[in-house]
Amino acid sequence: MENKNLNKHISGQFSAELEDIRNKVLAMGGLVERQLEQALDALGALDAELAQQVIDGDHRVNGMEVDIDEECTRIIAKRQPAASDLRLVIAISKTIADLERIGDACVRIAKAALEKRNNNQQPLLVSIESMGRHATRLLHSTLDSLARMDAESAIELHKEDAKLDKEYEGIIRQLMTYMMEDPRSIPGILDVLWAARAVERVGDRCKNICEYVIYYVKGRDVRHVSYEEMEKD
Amino acid sequence: MENKNLNKHISGQFSAELEDIRNKVLAMGGLVERQLEQALDALGALDAELAQQVIDGDHRVNGMEVDIDEECTRIIAKRQPAASDLRLVIAISKTIADLERIGDACVRIAKAALEKRNNNQQPLLVSIESMGRHATRLLHSTLDSLARMDAESAIELHKEDAKLDKEYEGIIRQLMTYMMEDPRSIPGILDVLWAARAVERVGDRCKNICEYVIYYVKGRDVRHVSYEEMEKD
Repeated sequence: MENKNLNKHISGQFSAELEDIRNKVLAMGGLVERQLEQALDALGALDAELAQQVIDGDHRVNGMEVDIDEECTRIIAKRQPAASDLRLVIAISKTIADLERIGDACVRIAKAALEKRNNNQQPLLVSIESMGRHATRLLHSTLDSLARMDAESAIELHKEDAKLDKEYEGIIRQLMTYMMEDPRSIPGILDVLWAARAVERVGDRCKNICEYVIYYVKGRDVRHVSYEEMEKD
Repeated sequence: MENKNLNKHISGQFSAELEDIRNKVLAMGGLVERQLEQALDALGALDAELAQQVIDGDHRVNGMEVDIDEECTRIIAKRQPAASDLRLVIAISKTIADLERIGDACVRIAKAALEKRNNNQQPLLVSIESMGRHATRLLHSTLDSLARMDAESAIELHKEDAKLDKEYEGIIRQLMTYMMEDPRSIPGILDVLWAARAVERVGDRCKNICEYVIYYVKGRDVRHVSYEEMEKD
């Protein structure tokens, strides 16, 4: 099997195809990263134009998902990859699903910005900005780890999500007290709450992508596995 | 290719393997369906024991996902499936990811039940019960459509999610007015709000699974495609 694999690589074409989907998934990651930054900027500044830009840009993210997924299926059918080549294709096909969902989270954040803007509400976003920066950094590092297929950093990043969850809980608590103090503020605060939730979900998606990197490098499925077990390997 | 495919099937073993993952994904679906029913019952009756049972049962859902996923990878590597066989394996490997996330939604609903129970809160769930029943029916029909690989019913069910979304919006509105009337109720209502959101997400997952059924039967990726286009085919 390994030998057959090697022959395929020698043919050059197969290697080029694998390289191509790798590049494409990184390009998709870059696009999603920009979407997240812009969505958070739009929410911070209540910038309706930028928010609309993020919403309009989502179809490109979706299109990339469908494209790359088709290419993965074609490679499996035509090249019949084995071992690490197959793991690469599988890791990529799973990664793009999570990237697409991060794209959806960006749309949700942008819609919260539009909603708040349209209702002429006061910004109330100090706390979400820091959480947003944290999520952006996490996504950036996750994509780095994916680009280098670096399992060590993926394991480290995997733990970061718990910190983001803590920040998120703090924000929910804060927002709850605001709502209780001034019930008229509730609809506006719920918009922020949905945005905060969307940011928190970005962390979950990054965690998933880290698991695919580990799966590719170590050949082991670490979903639902504890850190102790993960580091033992 | 088709011929080679046929030979594999004649060998019998390959067919048995495909049948096996089909049965397993349906068994996983059945388990998730029970989890959803019990989570909603636990929330309706504020039954802590039942809620805990749902939370404890989630590791079985997770375990099934990992098992079936491994088997899909093994089939791809060993059998090098083509055409509709490959589409079946891909559809199944995507379906289990959505089923696993419906399982997570069940845990979230069960946790809301526990939270409300522990705080001795009054139930306030009339509206979520009907939405919950709707989601349960949708999941049941989706699994039926998957069992029969019936693209027609999958297209019909795909539209159901929009109705669930409408119900969800109505509930959020209702909960918002309760919160504004009595700010002390806010923490308790947020629990219900998270539960309602989790139920709404079940609909999104069912929609995804319907798309995989259509992909398997029609050989076409219908994600991000409008109904008009979908029905034209």
